Amino acid sequence: MDTLTELTVRLKEFRDERDWAKFHNPKDLALAINIETSELLELFLWKKHDEVEKQKIELEVADIFSFLLLFADKYQIDLKKVLLNKIEINKIKYPVDKFKGVSTKYNAL
Amino acid sequence: MDTLTELTVRLKEFRDERDWAKFHNPKDLALAINIETSELLELFLWKKHDEVEKQKIELEVADIFSFLLLFADKYQIDLKKVLLNKIEINKIKYPVDKFKGVSTKYNAL
Amino acid sequence: MDTLTELTVRLKEFRDERDWAKFHNPKDLALAINIETSELLELFLWKKHDEVEKQKIELEVADIFSFLLLFADKYQIDLKKVLLNKIEINKIKYPVDKFKGVSTKYNAL
Amino acid sequence: MDTLTELTVRLKEFRDERDWAKFHNPKDLALAINIETSELLELFLWKKHDEVEKQKIELEVADIFSFLLLFADKYQIDLKKVLLNKIEINKIKYPVDKFKGVSTKYNAL
Repeated sequence: MDTLTELTVRLKEFRDERDWAKFHNPKDLALAINIETSELLELFLWKKHDEVEKQKIELEVADIFSFLLLFADKYQIDLKKVLLNKIEINKIKYPVDKFKGVSTKYNAL
Repeated sequence: MDTLTELTVRLKEFRDERDWAKFHNPKDLALAINIETSELLELFLWKKHDEVEKQKIELEVADIFSFLLLFADKYQIDLKKVLLNKIEINKIKYPVDKFKGVSTKYNAL
Repeated sequence: MDTLTELTVRLKEFRDERDWAKFHNPKDLALAINIETSELLELFLWKKHDEVEKQKIELEVADIFSFLLLFADKYQIDLKKVLLNKIEINKIKYPVDKFKGVSTKYNAL
Repeated sequence: MDTLTELTVRLKEFRDERDWAKFHNPKDLALAINIETSELLELFLWKKHDEVEKQKIELEVADIFSFLLLFADKYQIDLKKVLLNKIEINKIKYPVDKFKGVSTKYNAL
């Protein structure tokens, strides 16, 4: 089984054993991704990045990834496909000759 | 190659062709995940979730996932491993008999 | 009239002329504060703070403040009172002798 | 003294007694506003707004407002002036006859 599918299956097992699917509407799942991301950011607040413990970072990253997978599952989004598609879009939006070494005002990678 | 590894390789190719690694310090990558997540949330602002176009959602989800993969790569985090580990932690933190059907004050799944 | 009251009155006039109060439920107003804050953060992404234009910062700050005032109005929160109260709480939580010059793990001021 | 000035003075007294100004660079202050806003949002996660305690809301709102005032102070931003200015901009951007009762795709009030 593909890794993304496998992890989603495991998350849904965990969720369903607790009957939590009823709380997981798309808007709140998107909110949950955001809240977990802020918890990751909080680790860096007032700090330089090398002052942050890797173990704490891993726990927050896991939370963000969990809610992202559950959100994607809700919309039957194929994460691999949309990511590869977005890279193709960004290749057109940010041609190498114009954007090499240039920080842009867009949130590009 | 594992999907997560494959996607990370593709993102880094895109990044390195543009010489953008120099902008990607961990704190700003965490910030980028957050900003993309807010763009996802913005789709839902003042709306019910069924009023939001799936295509727009997919583009934002791809952005969040991209920066999450690049952030994880920066710290050499194995996303599969940390997610499975977090599920085990959450199984202990949220035992089924106490949390079944109960919305918690924690950001659990 | 107190400044906070005056600004709230002006914002509500703007809102009511457009009949937008019906969109402004508390959860979405909180979301709006968050989205505007991410737009402020986006100005700083990949940048040092002195690379950011003050005029752009002012526009985002105005948006954050607007939604904060409208949110506070929704709950009849007296912003001056709750802020002064929070300072008193923080004085107890962060006594000078223990926290002087020390970055804390809490999100204190 | 104007309320906004008075509150800013009080916050800076609290900050300076603890020698915390050195942590308060603009980028981290913007980050702090964002983190506090996510804590406000967290109160609403998986919930309807009437399930959220007003007292908890007030504490988070106070935190958001505190960092907003400190951020504005850092750039010598006159919050009253920029807010009134933004209302004028929005009056032009969202004319009553076109936007009355219409939820917009912009983050307008």
